[in-house]
Amino acid sequence: MTGPPPAVAAVRRAVRHALAGLAPGDLVLVACSGGADSLALAGATAFAAPRMGLRAGGVTVDHGLQPGSAERAAAVAATLRDLGLDPADHVAVRVGAEGGPEGAARTARYTALEAAARRHGAAAVLLGHTRDDQAETVLLRLARGSGARSLAGMPAASGRYLRPLLGLPRAQVHTACADMGLTPWSDPHNADFAYARSRVRHAALPALEEALGPGIAESLARTADLLRDDADALEEWADRAEAEARADGPGLDAAALARLPRAVRTRLLRRAAVAAGCPAGALGAVHVAGLDRLVTAWRGQAHVDLPGGRRGRRAGGRVLIDAPAPEPEG
Amino acid sequence: MTGPPPAVAAVRRAVRHALAGLAPGDLVLVACSGGADSLALAGATAFAAPRMGLRAGGVTVDHGLQPGSAERAAAVAATLRDLGLDPADHVAVRVGAEGGPEGAARTARYTALEAAARRHGAAAVLLGHTRDDQAETVLLRLARGSGARSLAGMPAASGRYLRPLLGLPRAQVHTACADMGLTPWSDPHNADFAYARSRVRHAALPALEEALGPGIAESLARTADLLRDDADALEEWADRAEAEARADGPGLDAAALARLPRAVRTRLLRRAAVAAGCPAGALGAVHVAGLDRLVTAWRGQAHVDLPGGRRGRRAGGRVLIDAPAPEPEG
Repeated sequence: MTGPPPAVAAVRRAVRHALAGLAPGDLVLVACSGGADSLALAGATAFAAPRMGLRAGGVTVDHGLQPGSAERAAAVAATLRDLGLDPADHVAVRVGAEGGPEGAARTARYTALEAAARRHGAAAVLLGHTRDDQAETVLLRLARGSGARSLAGMPAASGRYLRPLLGLPRAQVHTACADMGLTPWSDPHNADFAYARSRVRHAALPALEEALGPGIAESLARTADLLRDDADALEEWADRAEAEARADGPGLDAAALARLPRAVRTRLLRRAAVAAGCPAGALGAVHVAGLDRLVTAWRGQAHVDLPGGRRGRRAGGRVLIDAPAPEPEG
Repeated sequence: MTGPPPAVAAVRRAVRHALAGLAPGDLVLVACSGGADSLALAGATAFAAPRMGLRAGGVTVDHGLQPGSAERAAAVAATLRDLGLDPADHVAVRVGAEGGPEGAARTARYTALEAAARRHGAAAVLLGHTRDDQAETVLLRLARGSGARSLAGMPAASGRYLRPLLGLPRAQVHTACADMGLTPWSDPHNADFAYARSRVRHAALPALEEALGPGIAESLARTADLLRDDADALEEWADRAEAEARADGPGLDAAALARLPRAVRTRLLRRAAVAAGCPAGALGAVHVAGLDRLVTAWRGQAHVDLPGGRRGRRAGGRVLIDAPAPEPEG
């Protein structure tokens, strides 16, 4: 008697590891596009979950972006059912326009997954992202000049969402899919250079490998892990520092802020701006630097204009972020 | 009367900003390869330093790696003298083999710069790295799966070394060089694909720009700045935590370590391993993870083998790193 092929064993092991914290009888839902990654995840979960006393279901989302997508979603759901997943839903969504084509599809997809999880009382939703997806995410965010939290990429666990395959190379997961005898559906969008992620996958990462040698995806994923730890620690520090800086008055105490290292101080200032109503996406490094100068280079300067019509200013030794007072009438 | 061309003004402004903390009469030495970046730096320093009450000199290093390098170094020194820099040294070094061709040349160069700074009593040594050099450094380190300190790239100030041009695009510095009427010497090594940095410059970064749009160098440099702040803050935390964990016994107190977030705890464990004699370059994430399990997953496991013949173990609630006891004789 022989064991499963190595790639299948690796994917099953990763799934077992991810599910280890669940309670007997819990339902896990695999989010499956029909692509090789999430199909392998579905196959491994259908195998592993029942052996751990868990129930396993699946859900596939029809984004309605190509002709025939509804039929395809129904076929994927049938495959999930054949694997033994129950429930095996297909859900149609309407993709909006906000956040670009990729962002809008993602928003619609997660809304549908969230609804499916609630509907079935799922304890966990499993996502098929691999180590290569993680590397692409890190590169995409690097291109925006991001900080540690953003470069930390996708977490292996966040709320009920789990990414069991985040440590595995995509090639290994694809091998597992083939070894399981499953036929994936290749999303034509993945080869469409209109999407930034596709350009990273098919052009930028290969060029980096060519210039820097193999293993770049693994390195980017390892960097993401290290930076996630860093971001967690600095946010823990910011939590404690915020309590102290907010005591004894409105806004933040400038002297307490001045004692903090810049990494913690700028995190507090960014939080305060968002809490005061600045849209997080519009709040740039230049705004936070302006707020920081109220602390570290205070010479009685005027207020700092912030997105969302807010402004930062310093008064009575406190940094305050508010909306300008309305013009007096009459 | 018109002012200087914009690129020249930008380089001079950057030099003035970098030199603002020096005292009247101080000597600053420009490290100049004869390339466009450091030549523009030399020209701007020759202009700006005397107007700030500072003395300005220059030094060029002959690496002896190409035929005619000695003559070229003498010619660069003559150019520095023509710019009004005094002293204007050229120094020959012997490049070893350790650390690869680029690393060995760098080691020899910095040794020579250090000696020149001591010989002339220089308060600062100015280096011509630009924002594009910074971006290349970050990409090279990303390829190794590095943490925040490494990805922070080159600091604008470190000891007596200053990098006034670190915020400027290379293209702008090259324009300034031409606008100053200076003729740079193009290092043939810069186009030699045998060097990882050259491959990043001429292949990887252009491919990233193509995939992700322009501005990638600026984004990488901004990321480096953010991560440098993070690394500084986490090292400050580690300093304080280390004092607590080292109190009351040998090694580190496991309970004190367990209360720390992983980013701080792993920094302490890495420091302890290096302090105990593990070569820093050989100490990988896998070793630190092994030490971390002595804290977070303690089940009486055996010692952890570390580079340099050291080993980590847990005894009496403390994490200890030491060399194995010698075999008893006889």
